[in-house]
Amino acid sequence: MDQETNERNEHHSQYAVRPIGVVESPLHDPAAAPKQGDEGAPDATIVFVPDVEEALRDLRPGNDVLVLTWLHRADRDVLAVHPRDDRTRPLAGVFSTRSPDRPNPIGLHRVRIVAVDGLRVRVADLEALDGTPVLDVKPVLDPATER
Amino acid sequence: MDQETNERNEHHSQYAVRPIGVVESPLHDPAAAPKQGDEGAPDATIVFVPDVEEALRDLRPGNDVLVLTWLHRADRDVLAVHPRDDRTRPLAGVFSTRSPDRPNPIGLHRVRIVAVDGLRVRVADLEALDGTPVLDVKPVLDPATER
Repeated sequence: MDQETNERNEHHSQYAVRPIGVVESPLHDPAAAPKQGDEGAPDATIVFVPDVEEALRDLRPGNDVLVLTWLHRADRDVLAVHPRDDRTRPLAGVFSTRSPDRPNPIGLHRVRIVAVDGLRVRVADLEALDGTPVLDVKPVLDPATER
Repeated sequence: MDQETNERNEHHSQYAVRPIGVVESPLHDPAAAPKQGDEGAPDATIVFVPDVEEALRDLRPGNDVLVLTWLHRADRDVLAVHPRDDRTRPLAGVFSTRSPDRPNPIGLHRVRIVAVDGLRVRVADLEALDGTPVLDVKPVLDPATER
């Protein structure tokens, strides 16, 4: 098999993601959690693993960042949902929704960094449940601030 | 071990992501690729796997969406980089950069859907290389359009 054929077949592969940290939050109940961070999520703390300390050394209070999480309670077999769990709304394909239930349940959260204390980073507006694994942190996509 | 202890230990776990599609693009050379989609990326096509057809049924031309990819050529051991490969700039922790080299090399791309033809979705401004696995598609984060 040549290289191009190999690459075309890569969607048959699997890849392993390793959590780089975990969310500490007062949110424990999925039913009570806000659907989006700007709908009243409390402050939360991301506790990073020591292995990635160098990667977070330039995170500063006041930075807006994107946090990618692994929504470990999600149902990966769901392909269509009623948006916002409102059964009066028609089913929508999950790629057009923010449903946690989807083939790869990666959560994407825009948060503001409130404080940094070593491996513990406190953030505002993170709607993730306590214990949610964290996969990545990135600058926000706004062209003015991302470079 | 009680449930809370289990959850605290979940960052020692790994999770498997399964590509839901693959990028077809004229971009083959990492060195020649633009750093960001709005810096001249050509149109590309995401070819989805048949399993997820129902999940993409509400994607429409003109929609702006976020595409999550697996940057399969990345170096996962890199924790700090010179931003934009410019060695005159000081090293920065990768969580403050868009470097593909990072512990979990998940790419995040804001693109506009140009055309939908069954499992083939043509998009503008996707800077991913040909053969890049796709993990997820989500509505953009703008509060005005995401709900």
